[in-house]
Parts: sequence; structure tokens; C-alpha cells
Amino acid sequence: MPSAITINSDVGESFGLHSFGHDDELLALIDAANIACGFHAGDPHVMSATVASAARAGVAVGAHPGLPDLTGFGRRQMNLTAEEVRDLVVYQAGALNAFVTDAGGRLNHIKPHGALFGMLSRDEDLMKPVAEFAARRGAQIYGLAGTAHQRAADNAGAQFVPELYVDLNYDSNGSLIIGRRPHATDPAAAADRVKSAVSTGTITANDGSTLAVEFSSICVHSDTPNCVEVAKAVLFALETSQNASNQEGHAIGNA
Amino acid sequence: MPSAITINSDVGESFGLHSFGHDDELLALIDAANIACGFHAGDPHVMSATVASAARAGVAVGAHPGLPDLTGFGRRQMNLTAEEVRDLVVYQAGALNAFVTDAGGRLNHIKPHGALFGMLSRDEDLMKPVAEFAARRGAQIYGLAGTAHQRAADNAGAQFVPELYVDLNYDSNGSLIIGRRPHATDPAAAADRVKSAVSTGTITANDGSTLAVEFSSICVHSDTPNCVEVAKAVLFALETSQNASNQEGHAIGNA
Amino acid sequence: MPSAITINSDVGESFGLHSFGHDDELLALIDAANIACGFHAGDPHVMSATVASAARAGVAVGAHPGLPDLTGFGRRQMNLTAEEVRDLVVYQAGALNAFVTDAGGRLNHIKPHGALFGMLSRDEDLMKPVAEFAARRGAQIYGLAGTAHQRAADNAGAQFVPELYVDLNYDSNGSLIIGRRPHATDPAAAADRVKSAVSTGTITANDGSTLAVEFSSICVHSDTPNCVEVAKAVLFALETSQNASNQEGHAIGNA
Amino acid sequence: MPSAITINSDVGESFGLHSFGHDDELLALIDAANIACGFHAGDPHVMSATVASAARAGVAVGAHPGLPDLTGFGRRQMNLTAEEVRDLVVYQAGALNAFVTDAGGRLNHIKPHGALFGMLSRDEDLMKPVAEFAARRGAQIYGLAGTAHQRAADNAGAQFVPELYVDLNYDSNGSLIIGRRPHATDPAAAADRVKSAVSTGTITANDGSTLAVEFSSICVHSDTPNCVEVAKAVLFALETSQNASNQEGHAIGNA
Repeated sequence: MPSAITINSDVGESFGLHSFGHDDELLALIDAANIACGFHAGDPHVMSATVASAARAGVAVGAHPGLPDLTGFGRRQMNLTAEEVRDLVVYQAGALNAFVTDAGGRLNHIKPHGALFGMLSRDEDLMKPVAEFAARRGAQIYGLAGTAHQRAADNAGAQFVPELYVDLNYDSNGSLIIGRRPHATDPAAAADRVKSAVSTGTITANDGSTLAVEFSSICVHSDTPNCVEVAKAVLFALETSQNASNQEGHAIGNA
Repeated sequence: MPSAITINSDVGESFGLHSFGHDDELLALIDAANIACGFHAGDPHVMSATVASAARAGVAVGAHPGLPDLTGFGRRQMNLTAEEVRDLVVYQAGALNAFVTDAGGRLNHIKPHGALFGMLSRDEDLMKPVAEFAARRGAQIYGLAGTAHQRAADNAGAQFVPELYVDLNYDSNGSLIIGRRPHATDPAAAADRVKSAVSTGTITANDGSTLAVEFSSICVHSDTPNCVEVAKAVLFALETSQNASNQEGHAIGNA
Repeated sequence: MPSAITINSDVGESFGLHSFGHDDELLALIDAANIACGFHAGDPHVMSATVASAARAGVAVGAHPGLPDLTGFGRRQMNLTAEEVRDLVVYQAGALNAFVTDAGGRLNHIKPHGALFGMLSRDEDLMKPVAEFAARRGAQIYGLAGTAHQRAADNAGAQFVPELYVDLNYDSNGSLIIGRRPHATDPAAAADRVKSAVSTGTITANDGSTLAVEFSSICVHSDTPNCVEVAKAVLFALETSQNASNQEGHAIGNA
Repeated sequence: MPSAITINSDVGESFGLHSFGHDDELLALIDAANIACGFHAGDPHVMSATVASAARAGVAVGAHPGLPDLTGFGRRQMNLTAEEVRDLVVYQAGALNAFVTDAGGRLNHIKPHGALFGMLSRDEDLMKPVAEFAARRGAQIYGLAGTAHQRAADNAGAQFVPELYVDLNYDSNGSLIIGRRPHATDPAAAADRVKSAVSTGTITANDGSTLAVEFSSICVHSDTPNCVEVAKAVLFALETSQNASNQEGHAIGNA
């Protein structure tokens, strides 16, 4: 286990007057923010305001690029070429980076969103240009260990940050089961998963089997109704587990 | 007159399968390219390809941000706040800058497009954040001398590049008369305007009066049917005029 | 005063996963629903579901077309030609009408949204094609009495339904003062305005002057935090006022 | 073979200032126009103008709804639910229908575009609501014989118009091979396919095998560089073939 496990969450998914999520409360609890870049959610003004909020909260900022599908929240898979993926990620990450630079920060990481996340986990050809872009900028890649996320990051020379998901089910192969709409997560179950993952390096898959997990950041989704409670439970479980391991504890702000 | 007058043009205004303009021919003739950033025209793939073409042609690259109005080609004025202008320019220029950086170049300038160009020429409050962004990045501002374009650039410490327009009419106050659709321009008339402007520092306004013009770059619009002929006529007139003045001539690539 | 004053509200302004407003509670209180058509808010699925909800609630359905500006929620004025206004209203109202027809209903009215509402109140050339479209379909026009809304409806032969607004201020000329973001409205103040308007035909303008108002429908905006309380207060005031006038009372569903 | 085979083509695929295709020349040659509805191409003004042009040319008008992917021209498959397909088709066809009704016409048919065409040919659950919508409006369905296009139309009670494609290759199973970008088609080869199909009811698949085809309309794509020449060759071949069969010939305007 790494000495300091971080918590990350998707924020900046409001759109114009349409608010979304619980950004302010989450930013007080997490270490790294994945900020929507206007294709699946967010808009230039929301991005600007969210970068400022994250900076005030001392939270590391990453780009959370998505498919060009605002209506579908980037959760409907699209057939794209590797060039199209590269260009839409460069566009979105570049746009976010301008706000981050203006706020005196730097782009910490890139984490693809929704259906794009899944597509890139399964197809290294699609993931390759994203990893190469991250490597050129010195940004990390957040994703799922053992998938094309990691292979492409390793091959491109980008630092890879494997994630643990507390509000999605894993199948027995370690794949995530991702739906179109959010569902409430039991904070206690999320905390139990964190404790199990930290202490034993394993969690329980949806068929009851035991699954080894590798991670250095925990993702808490922000679109579940009780995401703030989940984040608090995860943070408490993480601090407790890490203290029990005589580790230094949760290093806020060090994503 | 400056020792080397450049020619700039709007390129990268295709969109998906919808081609637009005459980019390849223009890039062979101009010094600086104003590249659409996806809001009024262009898309991530077009931007990527256009930046690559400009780099091959040795042409300086600037961002050409527009209003969020693809259907109206950014030519329908919208009521925006200064914060909204700032954020949509930062977003678009940031996105373009990512492609430019990846191509080994740097962002040379920012030139607002269409109705946004006009809005920013008249309202320094709107122009101010754009000029400040350019100043932070060491980019120039292209625009109309004596307007809020210039005042904001001067106040922000951004280098200002005043333009001469050869395919738009000026009124007697030096304001441009901008329509929604392109119209053909007589190449000979464009050449005459360049010669007059270079040799006497004046041109003829639409009411026949004489108008002093200050410029160091000449804008040739790319959406007129014969824009390539206009660009060639302007380039020839410029070279002839500058040679006549015993100047060094047209400094290709030095925008 | 008309024998039965109705209440109308804007609904269907959610977008994908981004919920908005309080549609279900409002549909239980109002007579007529102005349904967003996808340009300023709403999307095909939201429209379909909202039409079904309105039908279940026995609420008359109207189109609420807006400017093509999802980010700005249709509240940023754009310079459009009369042809552009006609075509974007025909498009949006036609799309909504297909859902209404499929649900076994008919298009009751058209009410322009946001900045388009204001533009059309001031410019009869822009309003004319909208009124003509409504007349061809036998649909009413909802709008502000004494403005181009009414003149164009009268000239086109469309039935005009003048509105009273309880959550916006009027200036002394009877013009509405419309902001970009919603603000909470005091339900008691809204009720007082209704009582005054019903019993005396006048309300108080923002400068304290007395303003005559003509109306047969009351608009309750749906994007204020307490819109449901405002709607309840308006409905109660309306029923009380109309009973006091020995009128037939509030005719639910008869918009 | 039916007594009168028609020719159809996709038109109205311009977008704002971005022109596309060769609509005016094609409308003089074809019987039925598939008009883009703003999601993959087209915009309200283009739709209005195209409906008027088709009416002047005496061409039957159908809706050509596409995926919500303007950048990808509706040619990138997206994972959609049957409800999403239904709602985006109702929306688009409803919008087009409003223009058609205003022009004094009626909606002749619905033909899905691009990737949506392919998705609906393979999945009757997705096609079912489209066929049901067409049946409710008395509109035909254009599509590929023997696929879910036809089965859903038959089950819904919508008239099905099977198409022959002259500028796409068929595999030996009768499936179409559809690319992302148009390619030039040999007019002589297109004419030969028409002659073969009309006289023998078969064409040659891309592996050289003989394929039986059922059709009553011939689709000529409008985005190939030489589509007008292809349409002329098809029309000539069709007239020649039908005259040779002592048939009444090509019934212009009777789609």
C-alpha cells in the first residue's frame, strides 16, 4: 500500500443555471478534483469558478474530459477513432489547463469520464494518445489498474494512479459495472470496502468472490444523492485504517 | 509605417465533414493564421490539423475565439458579461494553445472573431480580460487601432497589432461595416487600398472621405469566394510598396 | 376581468441528468404549462416525459421556445433576423407538437422564453412570424399586454392571452425587469399583487406608481427557490378573489 | 418489380454558412428528398429553405433524423436506449413536419441517417418506436429490405419502401458497408447496378457473389463529389430499363 492514499471526486459538472452535485462540500473532504471540461458537463464559467474553488480548498486539479454528449452526460458509448479521442482530450484538457494556469496552479492529472473512461480502459490504441499527452505535460493518469489505462500510461511514461471505487460494483474480473444514472451508496458499505482494501488489499466482487485491488486513490462519485456522507465515511475509514497501520495518515492536498 | 507588414487570415473554420474556406492556399501566402476554436466554427480535429498545416507552412498561429453560436458562425451579437467573455476566451484560447504547444509552437496572438470582435472593439470592460489573458501568455492582440481593442491591450501590457482590412468598408469614423455573409472583393481594389495605406497612411472611407489608418498587419478574410486572389493581390501590392520604400520587404513568418 | 383566470408556469427545463425546477409539484397547481423545447433547456426525452406528466395532470400544454443558447439558458439577447426567429420557433414548436400529438393532446399556446420573450415584446417584425405560426395552428399567444406580443397576435388573428407576472418587477411603463438569475419571491407579496390586480385591475410598479394591468393568466416562474409556495399563494389568492367577485372560480385545466 | 421506381437523396445537410452537397441540382433529378433535421446536419433555417426548394421541385419530403452528433455528421455509432431513439426521432421528425405543413405539404416518409440507419437495421427494439411514429402519421419508412427496418415497419403497419444503394458496397449477406467519409462513385457502375437490379433483381456483392435485391426506390448519396453525375446516370438507366420493360417509366414526384 502507498504511504498516503488520496480521495478524488468529479466536480464542476454544473451547466449554466443547471446546478449539479455537491462541489463545495466535497472539495472540503477530497485531495484531488476531476473537473468536467464542457463536453459532457461544465461550461467555461463553471470551469473557471470550480478551479478557483479547488484552489481555495487546496485540492489538486485534474481534467475530466468526456465524450461530446451533453444530453447523455458522456455516458453513451460512441465509436471514435484514436485521432478523435486524442483531439477531444487535448482540446478539453487544454481548455481546463488555461484556467488552472491562470489560477497559479498546474494540471495534476487527467481522468477520462463516463463512457470514455470505459472505452479507454478496454482499448490501448484509444488510450495511448491520452497517456502521451499527460506524459508531455507531466500530468498523472487516474484509472483502473491492470487495464489499458495503466498499460498506456506505463508505455508513455506518464505516472499512473490506480483507483479504488467505493460506489460501483466490480465483477469477478475486476471490471467496473457502470450505469447511466447514479444510485445511492451505503456509506457504511463504502467504509467497509475501504477498510478491507487498505488492510487486506482485497474487496468483494458482485458475485461474492474476493478480488485483489491495487490503488493509491479512492474515487467517490459526486452524483449520488448522499455522496457527501459517502465521502465522509471514506475519509474516516481511511484515516482510521492508515493510523492503525502506523502510517502517516491521510495527506490532504498531496494528490 | 512598420518595417515589415504582415498578412493574416482566418483559417480552420471547417467543421466535421463541412469544409470551409481555402486554408491550404491561404497558408502559403500569409504570415499569421487566426484559428477558429470550436465555438463559431472549427472542431478539435480541425484545430489539430490546422495547427499542423500552419506549422508546416511556417505561419504564426493565433487563437480566433468566437461567440458560442455555431449556427450563426459567431456573427450574431449576444449580450455577455465581462466574466462570460473572459471565460469563453480563456477556454477557447487554452484549447488551441494545447494543440500549438503539442506541435512545438507557441501562441502568437489572439484575435476575437465576428460579432465578438465588434463587441470588444466598443466595450473596454469586455476587452479587458482578453487583453489581460494575452499579456499573461506573452501573446499579441490583433484588432482595430484606436478602439477598445487597443486601449485594453495597452492597459494590460499586451503588444497590440493594428490591422488594415481590405475586404470590409470603413465608415468615416474608422468603424468597420461587418455583414453576416461574405461578399466578393475586387482584388484590384484591395491592392489599391494596400498601396494607398502603405504610401500615404490613408484610405478612402465608404462616404468618399479620407481616413487615416494605422496598421502593421493586413487582414484578408477567408470566406469570400475569391479570397485567394485577394490575398495574392495584397501580397503583391505589399511587396511592391515596401520595395518602393526601400524597406526590407515582406517578412514571411515574422508575425 | 375575464371570468376564469388561469395560472401558467415554465416546466420541462431539466436537461439530461441535470434536473431543474419543481415540475411535479407545479403541475398539480397550474392550468397551463410552457414546455421548454431543447434550445435554452429541455431535451427530447425531457420533453416527452413532461408532456406525459402535463397530460396526466390535466394541464394545457404550450411551446416555450427559446434562443439557441443552452449555456445561457436563453437569457442572453442575440441579434436575430425575423426569418431566424420564425425558423427557430417553427422548429421548436413543431418538435414539441409531435410529442403533444402523440400524447393525444393539442398545442394550446406558444410563449417565447427569456431574452426571446423580451425581444419579441419590443419588435413586431420579429413577433409577426411567431403569431402567424400560432394562428395557423389555432394556438394562443401568451405574452405581455400592450406590447408587440399582442399587436402581432391581433394582426395575425391568433388569440392573445395577456399575462400578469407575480415574481418580476414592472417599471412605471409596464415593462418587465428581467434578470439572468432567479431570485426568491415573497409568496405574500405575490398573493397581494394577485388580489390587487383582480380586484382593482392595477398593481404597484417598482417606483411606487400605480400601473393598470390587463391579464387573463398569471405566470409563476419555476426557477425561484420557493416557486411552489408562490404558486400555492397565487392559487389561494386567486380563488379567494374570484369567489369574492361571485365569479365561477379557478377553472382548472381550461387554459 | 414495382411499376414505378423512384430516386431519393439526402438533402438539407448544409449548416449555417457551411454549405454542403448539391441540393438544387439533385432536387431537379429525384422524386423524394430525405431532409436533415438539425442533429447530424441542417439547422432550422436550412430546413425551412430546403422544404421550400423541394416543394418547388415537386419532390416528396421525408425526415432524415440522425444521432445528436454534429461534429461526427451522425456517423459515429452511439449506445442509445429505445426510448432515446424514439424521442430524438419524434423531436426531429416533428420539427421537420412543422416546416412541411407550413409549406402546404405532408410528411411522406422517414429515413434514419448514418449510424442511426445502421443501428436501426440491426435492432428491431430500436426501430419499433420509429416505425410506430411513422404509422401514426401515415408516413412511409425507407430502409433496407429484410432488416429490422422492414420487420418493424411491417409490425407497426407503416408502409415500407425498400431501397437500392448505388454508391455503397453490399457484402454477400446483403449488408451495406458504410464508411465515415464519402468517396466518388463511378456513374457507369451505378447505372450498371440499376440496370442489373431492374432487369434481373440481382446485383453483385463486394465478393463477386450474386445478391438478390428488393427495392422500389434508389438512394443516391449527395455527399460524393460527383453525386449529380451519379444521379443523372441512375435516372437515365432507370428510364431506359423501365421503358425496355414496357413500363410506364419513371414517375417523377410520386414517391
